[in-house]
Amino acid sequence: MPRTAETASFKFNHTMLRVRDPQVSLKFYTEVLGMDLAEKQVHETFTLYFLVYNYGNEVTDSVTRKGREGVLELTHNHGTENDTNFAGYANGNSDPGRGFGHIAIVVDDVEKACERFERLGVKFQKRPSDGKMKDIAFILDPDGYWIEVVKGYYPSGF
Amino acid sequence: MPRTAETASFKFNHTMLRVRDPQVSLKFYTEVLGMDLAEKQVHETFTLYFLVYNYGNEVTDSVTRKGREGVLELTHNHGTENDTNFAGYANGNSDPGRGFGHIAIVVDDVEKACERFERLGVKFQKRPSDGKMKDIAFILDPDGYWIEVVKGYYPSGF
Repeated sequence: MPRTAETASFKFNHTMLRVRDPQVSLKFYTEVLGMDLAEKQVHETFTLYFLVYNYGNEVTDSVTRKGREGVLELTHNHGTENDTNFAGYANGNSDPGRGFGHIAIVVDDVEKACERFERLGVKFQKRPSDGKMKDIAFILDPDGYWIEVVKGYYPSGF
Repeated sequence: MPRTAETASFKFNHTMLRVRDPQVSLKFYTEVLGMDLAEKQVHETFTLYFLVYNYGNEVTDSVTRKGREGVLELTHNHGTENDTNFAGYANGNSDPGRGFGHIAIVVDDVEKACERFERLGVKFQKRPSDGKMKDIAFILDPDGYWIEVVKGYYPSGF
């Protein structure tokens, strides 16, 4: 659909989540979910990690993490990983704190993806076999954030 | 970077946020931010709205909302818009409930985009002139979620 010239350049670039321990979270998002670390920014009290799928495999402007969509920014406030009094971050799905719901990954085969997640020891909020909706699952990342796993739609020929 | 065959089909499809009043939020995301409503799913107790940039203007598989990245899912639990006891959703940036941080929109000109947001009466968490980082801003959506406004990076020729 046509947009106004004023918003023609806009893209939904990223979603930011706070994580307690970046080593644990980076392992999860790169090894389990298959994302690539595109950029790391070390600041005085926090470090930012920008993750994307297929980083560097594209020939369009979407090759950089700032010119594309589908970027996940993980914020690590230094020290939380060793703070035994740290209560953990809210995943947004229970009160108080409810608001944010989840991020979602589309896959070509939900069953196969979930079998692999099981093998890798990933925790499930909802397995494909749970509940009415057999074609979606929700896994949990290391901080307890919900990640929907759902079949992508590919037009014929893809 | 190469990924395993097991995750080769994966894409970061969407981010879900709960909203109190879909009429107010849809107006904000389509008219102010310039997104397109790609899909509406009416369920018994809730309705889902899927928004993307540039819907229908692409010739790749990314034309559908399930085959692409950068989708925003807004969940409306029926009744919140008229419930005077509804406390509102947490934006994730203060305790308790802290965890989710923000979504971000890249634009070609942060100053111009923010001048327009001002004209449209959008609330700011941080104007470009506030603080040290002059090249980014944070606006607030109708539920108070933070939306970063940042310059995208476009390689020469774009």
